[in-house]
Amino acid sequence: MKKDDMIAWFEQGSVSIPKLLFNHYSDLGLDETEFMMLMHLNVFIDSGESFPTPHDLSAKMSVSTTKCMEVLRNLIQKGVLTIEQLDDSSSVISEQYSLKPLWRKLINLLMQENQNEVQQEQEQEEI
Amino acid sequence: MKKDDMIAWFEQGSVSIPKLLFNHYSDLGLDETEFMMLMHLNVFIDSGESFPTPHDLSAKMSVSTTKCMEVLRNLIQKGVLTIEQLDDSSSVISEQYSLKPLWRKLINLLMQENQNEVQQEQEQEEI
Amino acid sequence: MKKDDMIAWFEQGSVSIPKLLFNHYSDLGLDETEFMMLMHLNVFIDSGESFPTPHDLSAKMSVSTTKCMEVLRNLIQKGVLTIEQLDDSSSVISEQYSLKPLWRKLINLLMQENQNEVQQEQEQEEI
Amino acid sequence: MKKDDMIAWFEQGSVSIPKLLFNHYSDLGLDETEFMMLMHLNVFIDSGESFPTPHDLSAKMSVSTTKCMEVLRNLIQKGVLTIEQLDDSSSVISEQYSLKPLWRKLINLLMQENQNEVQQEQEQEEI
Repeated sequence: MKKDDMIAWFEQGSVSIPKLLFNHYSDLGLDETEFMMLMHLNVFIDSGESFPTPHDLSAKMSVSTTKCMEVLRNLIQKGVLTIEQLDDSSSVISEQYSLKPLWRKLINLLMQENQNEVQQEQEQEEI
Repeated sequence: MKKDDMIAWFEQGSVSIPKLLFNHYSDLGLDETEFMMLMHLNVFIDSGESFPTPHDLSAKMSVSTTKCMEVLRNLIQKGVLTIEQLDDSSSVISEQYSLKPLWRKLINLLMQENQNEVQQEQEQEEI
Repeated sequence: MKKDDMIAWFEQGSVSIPKLLFNHYSDLGLDETEFMMLMHLNVFIDSGESFPTPHDLSAKMSVSTTKCMEVLRNLIQKGVLTIEQLDDSSSVISEQYSLKPLWRKLINLLMQENQNEVQQEQEQEEI
Repeated sequence: MKKDDMIAWFEQGSVSIPKLLFNHYSDLGLDETEFMMLMHLNVFIDSGESFPTPHDLSAKMSVSTTKCMEVLRNLIQKGVLTIEQLDDSSSVISEQYSLKPLWRKLINLLMQENQNEVQQEQEQEEI
């Protein structure tokens, strides 16, 4: 084991996933492949590549490029992923993925859960 | 949105996954469901529950209890998960999952990759 | 470098700090020693030791036990740390540190900032 | 509390610090201000700003710009931080901070610790 390899590994760092999402993605109707694709997209976006191709994603995952295209389509249809159009100063229009809808859905889910709990407590008190 | 909910979310914290593993689990022959099960096991272990049931895992994931049992078996067969027997002072024998074989496989994979690169460089120099 | 050491290091994992707090602790009036003591307390709490002694903290930090006691007092006075009394079934009363007031202050700070921005925008529109 | 604020906070993500470093920075002779400056540098580097000014650092920390300059000098003298010169295709020479020496020192410290333990065990066996 060379020290330089280990240093390179330390420099790579970690991916952080809020436990809130880690514990609730299945409540949002996402399976493990869909969830992991969102996490890979997040890492790409953080590293400055905000519109990775299905090929880029497939290289990190256990699924084929064709399957990646299908999962991306599903994520957009499920309303947890969106493509934003960026209009920069030049006439070039670039696109980027955004996970904003995922966070919004997560917050809505949790607010609803809390509201249900409050409601249940109120109903119990009334009885 | 109540502040107390937000505080509770902050207190939950995050799950950290080394990028080294995040980028190479598919090279270790793991699909997304297998990888996520290992990550859920890791979170259970960290929180002091070192032998969660398939039912516990299923509650966090998108797969059924039966499927969880099957995936756990696969992970042990693939040599990335093991069950350790703990013999404490009392006569009770308890079991716990360990991800040591996963880390060992990851290190082996990376050492081999580096060795291949060195070998290729040496071969190119010889030509 | 032995592989078993590396596996042990992987198993230790990482400490995750929300960027929100990482970028704003100084706005909350905390210096680096105070911030790091809170982070060490958080790690102790997560690992099940919810009332570490100044000696425990000093062992991880660059400050003496006496200085640790002083910093802990300051953190409580600044309203970012509190000691909760736990009354369990037995007659024993145990104590534990809680960082709830830190998260509350952070949320308040950010809500105020956003309100100021909204106010400034409104004032500019009125002009 | 507006949902859009919360989404923005989720998108910011977290800073991950290996527990190995978190638990051993003081063994490397670093105090909390020095350690936090290294962590702030790391976040700047990850976000693509690999040569932040003392002013940039001071804005995130509780220390003045002058003090930041002094701490940066100390870190370089202590051999945990270095400035790398980047020679790109154009004639422009750019500089960037690197934390490689920090990781190297950490690895050395741990290898030494393990060696001492092995030695102690051997000596005890001999007795």
